[in-house]
Amino acid sequence: MCVMSVQKEKAELLRRLHHGPEILVLPNAWDCASARIFEQAGFPAIATTSAGVSFSLGYPDGEFIPQDEMLGVVKRIATCVNVPVTADLESGYRDIAKTTAALIDSGAAGLNLEDMEHAESKVLTETGRQIEKITAVRRVAEGMGVKVVINARTDVYLAQIGDAATRFERACQRLRGYIDAGADCVFLPGLTDEHTIRRVVEALKFPVNILATANAPSIARLEHLGVARVSVGSSVMRATMGLTRDIAAELKHEGTYSRMLEGPISYADANRLFENK
Amino acid sequence: MCVMSVQKEKAELLRRLHHGPEILVLPNAWDCASARIFEQAGFPAIATTSAGVSFSLGYPDGEFIPQDEMLGVVKRIATCVNVPVTADLESGYRDIAKTTAALIDSGAAGLNLEDMEHAESKVLTETGRQIEKITAVRRVAEGMGVKVVINARTDVYLAQIGDAATRFERACQRLRGYIDAGADCVFLPGLTDEHTIRRVVEALKFPVNILATANAPSIARLEHLGVARVSVGSSVMRATMGLTRDIAAELKHEGTYSRMLEGPISYADANRLFENK
Repeated sequence: MCVMSVQKEKAELLRRLHHGPEILVLPNAWDCASARIFEQAGFPAIATTSAGVSFSLGYPDGEFIPQDEMLGVVKRIATCVNVPVTADLESGYRDIAKTTAALIDSGAAGLNLEDMEHAESKVLTETGRQIEKITAVRRVAEGMGVKVVINARTDVYLAQIGDAATRFERACQRLRGYIDAGADCVFLPGLTDEHTIRRVVEALKFPVNILATANAPSIARLEHLGVARVSVGSSVMRATMGLTRDIAAELKHEGTYSRMLEGPISYADANRLFENK
Repeated sequence: MCVMSVQKEKAELLRRLHHGPEILVLPNAWDCASARIFEQAGFPAIATTSAGVSFSLGYPDGEFIPQDEMLGVVKRIATCVNVPVTADLESGYRDIAKTTAALIDSGAAGLNLEDMEHAESKVLTETGRQIEKITAVRRVAEGMGVKVVINARTDVYLAQIGDAATRFERACQRLRGYIDAGADCVFLPGLTDEHTIRRVVEALKFPVNILATANAPSIARLEHLGVARVSVGSSVMRATMGLTRDIAAELKHEGTYSRMLEGPISYADANRLFENK
């Protein structure tokens, strides 16, 4: 089968996973090692984390990384696993058409697109402009023959935009526009309370993605609330960075190796992750 | 100060650290996140791990990774920290002159060069040939104006070459040749018993590098034995891969996040690692 047919099939598979009997749990990879570990753990698809990829390559999160470096990692990950990969592309790296073309070239099956111009700006992209961007992704991707899965994100909750009482309406209004523009799923990072999650699911009647963080309900609870998709953002990468910090502190101050030797993947098993790849 | 002068100074600093009052402990990084965490923990220099870099980019260890991809990561790491970086370059990626030129271009201050043709071959490079390679590194690097720190590694112990009783003599004979060819330090991964470590230090009267693994003495013991340098190879990377595997299993089978949330670096702290970089 030609490469493009495989990519098209992966996009359709990823789309179907949003409508399956089970909630779709997407762990977020930042390199080939994490991606292969997630694939081997049995996840049917894998997301990337823009923050994790940025830290790994030496940038802060928030579009400081050049577009070609981000998409280079996405391509590497998509090449190294068989399951569909969906890419966290922040707010699209300025030229959305160019970014979409690079996404298709990477072999990915989907993307996240957020509606804040810059992580630190705390200013949402004007709704009409965001709708144009989503429309452009759909047009460019289909023009290249792949109906990628668009996960349209609003940062109303994450960035705590406006008065708390206004956020539900503000978010739903934006997300309805994104759905009309062709989104396959809508993503509300920062939203963790069960009551509001249920209200969003009922109001939109559309696949909703929730970010699993410290205060979020368990996967079983999210499934019960009608959530279609859960992802973890940069949390796994930041957990490994925490372990690296702890191992370094023990090595520096105690001169011992106990944390380092607690539960590694063996050298042989690590090599096996990449055989015949 | 010009870039080259900074690199020359870093090579001299790294060389001096092999002769200081304290043992030199080098943690091995595989990406910018691990490198910055090690730098922030206070290590005066950082090594890379060929296995860790290979896994991160989707290859098994053992020179399956193309030379330009390995040196690309070395350059990224050397650019992202201020302390000297020494690169694990396996057995030199076939064209040792080209590899050395790329090493100098990367901004690194030193390198490891091992004497096994291929990780799975269990065949040592002929001693004369290895001496030629070390001589070539020295010649090319100095021709480019940087006296890089050469850590010459023998795999006699790691690959368990020949009868156990013959390994001490075989290793010392090889390492004497490497020292005469211009090595700054000699590295014997796989050697962990205190008695033999002491014998090697006394026989060679030269900086010796020991790999800290499950059976190795503590840093304090290694310092007491006269060891000049300790590194950890791929152990930290494989520990983080083990944590990633455990987090993935909990997410998949329990639908909870406790391992993921145990001791991460916060998003704000992770971003701060790369500010002004």
